[in-house]
Amino acid sequence: MIATVKERAPLEPALLASLRQRLGDRLSTSAAVCAQHGKDESYHAPHAPDAVAFARSTDEVAAIVSLCAAYKTPVIAFGTGTSLEGHVAALRGGVCIDLAQMNAIVRVNADDLDATVEAGVTRKQLNEYLRDTGLFFPIDPGADASIGGMAATRASGTNAVRYGTMRENVMSLTVVLADGRVIRTARRARKSAAGYDLTRLFVGSEGTLGVITEVTVRLYGIPEAILAAVCAFPTIAAAVDTVIETIQSGIPVARIELLDEAQMDAINKYSKLDHRVAPTLFFEFHGSESGVAEQVDTVKALAAEHGGDDFRWAASPEARSKLWQARHDAYYAALALRPGSKGWPTDVCVPISRLAECIAETKRDLAQSSIPSALAGHVGDGNFHLIFMIDPQLPEEIAEASRLNDRMVARALEMEGTCTGEHGIGYGKMDFLVAEHGEAISVMRSIKQALDPDDILNPGKIIRV
Amino acid sequence: MIATVKERAPLEPALLASLRQRLGDRLSTSAAVCAQHGKDESYHAPHAPDAVAFARSTDEVAAIVSLCAAYKTPVIAFGTGTSLEGHVAALRGGVCIDLAQMNAIVRVNADDLDATVEAGVTRKQLNEYLRDTGLFFPIDPGADASIGGMAATRASGTNAVRYGTMRENVMSLTVVLADGRVIRTARRARKSAAGYDLTRLFVGSEGTLGVITEVTVRLYGIPEAILAAVCAFPTIAAAVDTVIETIQSGIPVARIELLDEAQMDAINKYSKLDHRVAPTLFFEFHGSESGVAEQVDTVKALAAEHGGDDFRWAASPEARSKLWQARHDAYYAALALRPGSKGWPTDVCVPISRLAECIAETKRDLAQSSIPSALAGHVGDGNFHLIFMIDPQLPEEIAEASRLNDRMVARALEMEGTCTGEHGIGYGKMDFLVAEHGEAISVMRSIKQALDPDDILNPGKIIRV
Repeated sequence: MIATVKERAPLEPALLASLRQRLGDRLSTSAAVCAQHGKDESYHAPHAPDAVAFARSTDEVAAIVSLCAAYKTPVIAFGTGTSLEGHVAALRGGVCIDLAQMNAIVRVNADDLDATVEAGVTRKQLNEYLRDTGLFFPIDPGADASIGGMAATRASGTNAVRYGTMRENVMSLTVVLADGRVIRTARRARKSAAGYDLTRLFVGSEGTLGVITEVTVRLYGIPEAILAAVCAFPTIAAAVDTVIETIQSGIPVARIELLDEAQMDAINKYSKLDHRVAPTLFFEFHGSESGVAEQVDTVKALAAEHGGDDFRWAASPEARSKLWQARHDAYYAALALRPGSKGWPTDVCVPISRLAECIAETKRDLAQSSIPSALAGHVGDGNFHLIFMIDPQLPEEIAEASRLNDRMVARALEMEGTCTGEHGIGYGKMDFLVAEHGEAISVMRSIKQALDPDDILNPGKIIRV
Repeated sequence: MIATVKERAPLEPALLASLRQRLGDRLSTSAAVCAQHGKDESYHAPHAPDAVAFARSTDEVAAIVSLCAAYKTPVIAFGTGTSLEGHVAALRGGVCIDLAQMNAIVRVNADDLDATVEAGVTRKQLNEYLRDTGLFFPIDPGADASIGGMAATRASGTNAVRYGTMRENVMSLTVVLADGRVIRTARRARKSAAGYDLTRLFVGSEGTLGVITEVTVRLYGIPEAILAAVCAFPTIAAAVDTVIETIQSGIPVARIELLDEAQMDAINKYSKLDHRVAPTLFFEFHGSESGVAEQVDTVKALAAEHGGDDFRWAASPEARSKLWQARHDAYYAALALRPGSKGWPTDVCVPISRLAECIAETKRDLAQSSIPSALAGHVGDGNFHLIFMIDPQLPEEIAEASRLNDRMVARALEMEGTCTGEHGIGYGKMDFLVAEHGEAISVMRSIKQALDPDDILNPGKIIRV
């Protein structure tokens, strides 16, 4: 999709001066710094902001937003730049607020199984910090994203089938509003019936309703037993049917991931592994020793019925880490299959009863296409990803990826699914959002206009105002 | 709290005529019918609407709301009238939409573990319908409430510690907006990153942002093994400490309920039981046979360390049903302790690390008070309830209950908790909501004004416009 870039005006010198006065050398207008902050990891055209402010506190973010509000200048929050639908592109210029220096772990309440962190803390940083507590933060979108960014994009990933997404795991947020006021969306109680659910409103709002500066998340005890496994299947349908039966049986599997043969070939080469080049499921089981043994028995029996009997196990932390790192590198591995290519990643999510059909039809499309692609997914949720490896210099490849993407999203919507399970809308999927939500888009637009009347917060993303 | 009743004007005759033309004898203005629809199960003063419309479809609700919008007449949605903070009181008159006749189970997708029901379907009706599928809907607030009402109030109850609240278990809603337009908030995918989370915005909005007419909820497989138990403890602190350690150990207990000695005395008398009159925990364990056995072993060991060694077990469906019916009748049982009294129920929820302290301080307050009360709670979530049994004719008793309630809520807020874990705000806790949320109230108000600019949807509830 081509973004509509409108009203791009240079920054007011007075605004720049005020920001510089406040931030000193933590305000940058260097072309390199700005360029780096206008792009994510996708195929979307980069759009550099006019300046980048490296904030160190909620107060500082509030001051920056207040100043920008006074000049009706766009404000784009930036975490680690690992989003995939153009979320951080400064379509109308403006000031990017880089939150990486807000990386303090504010408080861990081990007894309450929660932690409060500044928005720039990454998930790996938090888990490293938690190492000696016996607790962990399970949401794992692959990239070592910032927790603020993960909240803003409603991230999920491999563990979501067991632990939920950021929707379920964010308890409370500190948010800077469009006029610079600061709110806290909730207290630390596990549940509340006190008023509108502002936490969930800001989770997934992609910086368009406010800038998230602190996040309180749920933590979990590290399970007594963890066991990972890889199993190849004769066909992708056989693998998907195993997933569906596992979920329908209520087995509390922690991870259940599908990689197609192209993706397995890619990770073998990229990570120097020797997995069978076949549709493959990656599993992880969490629980007590006996609970894990019970889950494994059931899943092995289900898999065997579908021709999946070649389980390779990983029990030690090192073996598991190696296995999941290969899974997480799938995107880079796919790109490496075609040197010089750029990735066009996309994802959809459908009810699990439609998953096999959705994947089969999508694979038929891909088989007839001229551009290479690979499929992987968090199939326990009904969520899967495609990556097209395109040459961005060739308009016909962009057009073909776009056509395949359109067809896949239309197929998912037809099957009562969503146009994105976890990547978000950014400016890449705005038309699909309209197709998905119909009249409900008007409610989203009313909320956006109520909370950001001058449209300064990450303008041009999610909905057209 | 005394509600501010303002601008109560009689219904426009033309509106009445239009409604009657559309609904025939499903529009009632009888004093008895109106009176019945203006009260819930609490101490709050009833406020009858001017008319009650018995709707049979989303289209009909949309037509009613459109007509009322044209005359700027209040619209109050009504399920079973079992709310506890004055939610259905027609503070400014207007039209009550009774949704009880919208009681069709629209669709059960057993393979996807979800069901779509009209708003008037009650939780027991749904579970009765599901009986032969091996699935169940776990949310259980005690009363046989309508699922639309449970969504509107973000209900939770005894199973929430394991299965979550309506927040986690509503997948999608059909909502009639303030101008009569109809939206669907989401599709049937398990997760989505597509736009603002409208589902969670309407869950808990208490009819102030729209009228919920259909709900898609998650279902779960009935566990292979279910075991319930009751265990008395020497002190309330011993019982609460057992709860805290159970939760902190990550044991996936399905229910863990606390009743104080007054409440146990009440249910013994009301339900003709012979439990020890002592602080008591009610448990339920769900899982595989071996999984339940493992949970039971761990919890028994934890309880024994706190002097709880008198477990009474209930394994058969009949025995479990009897046990939980007694728990659910706790409210009526408490009222029966003081014949002729009216109940003032209230609830708070705190981080579990503060639960013992919060309950202990609250019990000290109660011990020094002249009015009788009983305490029960879904303590696994940090949530507990008080019921004051008051003579509503005696202003000094109302004042005393109000004072104790104020102190309990202030204590919960001080402990980073919430003013209500599950009863909601209605018009009974509006001041507490302000105390809890501070500046965030302004965001709630902006949303309310954006979606209901004429303030016709359940006016006078949650926030002052």
